[in-house]
Amino acid sequence: MASFDGCTDPRLKQVMQSLTRHLHAFIRDVRLTEKEWEAGIGFLTAAGHITDDKRQEFVLLSDVFGASMQTIAVNNEAQGNATEATVFGPFFVEDAPRIPIGGDIAGGATGQPCWIEGTVTDLAGHPVPNARIEVWEADEDGFYDVQYTDARVAGRAYLYSDAEGKYAFWGLTPTPYPIPHDGPVGQLLASVGRSPVRASHLHFMVTAPSLRTLVTHIFVEGDPQLAIGDSVFGVKDSLIKRFEPQAPGTPTPDGRDLDSVGWARTRFDIVLAPADA
Amino acid sequence: MASFDGCTDPRLKQVMQSLTRHLHAFIRDVRLTEKEWEAGIGFLTAAGHITDDKRQEFVLLSDVFGASMQTIAVNNEAQGNATEATVFGPFFVEDAPRIPIGGDIAGGATGQPCWIEGTVTDLAGHPVPNARIEVWEADEDGFYDVQYTDARVAGRAYLYSDAEGKYAFWGLTPTPYPIPHDGPVGQLLASVGRSPVRASHLHFMVTAPSLRTLVTHIFVEGDPQLAIGDSVFGVKDSLIKRFEPQAPGTPTPDGRDLDSVGWARTRFDIVLAPADA
Repeated sequence: MASFDGCTDPRLKQVMQSLTRHLHAFIRDVRLTEKEWEAGIGFLTAAGHITDDKRQEFVLLSDVFGASMQTIAVNNEAQGNATEATVFGPFFVEDAPRIPIGGDIAGGATGQPCWIEGTVTDLAGHPVPNARIEVWEADEDGFYDVQYTDARVAGRAYLYSDAEGKYAFWGLTPTPYPIPHDGPVGQLLASVGRSPVRASHLHFMVTAPSLRTLVTHIFVEGDPQLAIGDSVFGVKDSLIKRFEPQAPGTPTPDGRDLDSVGWARTRFDIVLAPADA
Repeated sequence: MASFDGCTDPRLKQVMQSLTRHLHAFIRDVRLTEKEWEAGIGFLTAAGHITDDKRQEFVLLSDVFGASMQTIAVNNEAQGNATEATVFGPFFVEDAPRIPIGGDIAGGATGQPCWIEGTVTDLAGHPVPNARIEVWEADEDGFYDVQYTDARVAGRAYLYSDAEGKYAFWGLTPTPYPIPHDGPVGQLLASVGRSPVRASHLHFMVTAPSLRTLVTHIFVEGDPQLAIGDSVFGVKDSLIKRFEPQAPGTPTPDGRDLDSVGWARTRFDIVLAPADA
């Protein structure tokens, strides 16, 4: 602890001393053996070596220990009816394409078409126009575009809410998929008898001036994985939404011709907290 | 915590649940920000990418947080006058050459010649014959052979104690050197105002049937770095030894002709605890 006494940045000193205290307490509590310590070093090394531009094993590690959700919890205190936050995950990338309201994020990703609509408001219920809404999701095989072997962009886009705070877009009805589990984190989950599967979800990141950035998902009511458990502890009841199945031929909200395939629709009204609270 | 309830290995379950508890407590205690979490992920990623066959950044990380010494402490409880253990460090390699008693470990590594001798005994004071004694150290520039750009083996060897438990070898008088500090761990130490320098030392690993393996160092009495502090917290008073300087021309214990250079000598008597205690 004293080795950090000379640190001139008080916040860094606080974080380092707390980390040291908890790390040592863990080692003492379990009386960590030298073989277990070696296994830990080996685990971190393997996680480092599998991590690259497209694969982030340390984010997965944080996620499966609930550390990501704990961090989100301490940084997103409940405020009125503000929409709850959940994990960011390792699959967001910059430079997604912009779509107009009513546009399609699929970009060739396979799955059941789904119409998603809602409003963005502040805590007082006032519409938030021009909120930037980033959305991203896996295809029906459980893969995000960054996991494809080609450089295709699919299943991600951003759009802006309109003057009344409204937004709508076409995406895919989310399906369950495992987090990448062919690496050390997957081996860890297998060794403790945990499933790598995530509850079906669609990612949102919503930003607007003076309002707190919201990183969240919506989940699918009735998804059996909700009962089994989400591998990264991301589910909150308020984020579970009804995805209404629509029979083939049901007219679409924007007149889009879906060529006689079934589709779904859901509503997600987003409430943003103030930025500084 | 409950996600590990299905783990059928009770020890693994205990370690994972304790790790989870302490990790979450750390995040809550400091109210880790999302930017700090990202910095942590970035740090681990960089540590993983700099780690290879010759560089082990995660061991350095464990060392500079005192986690390595804490692990050693909980696994090497004091027993009678058994010699104390200290950090293993990242520079041990298998397949060091064998030398006879009185042989030289330097193998071309530069530095002041030093005669090291002692006995290996058990707690009752009985000699331990045929104890395997691995020794390794940095050259006077602060580099271990694994840090050389060629594949030369230098500054490391193993030998066996004789029938009376005695051993002796030529090595180099240890000098202070920094741990590798051109990577993330070095940046961390710099940012908190800590020195990367280790107190001068010579590594030992001593193994014998039915006795606890001893991993330790000897340190050099009077080394100014002892007062400044060892970057990995490895120093124990009982391991600080007097290295007696010998003027050029002083006869050597084994008649070796040192060609009129000064040398040093020290004594390190090793006491091994029982393996099962």
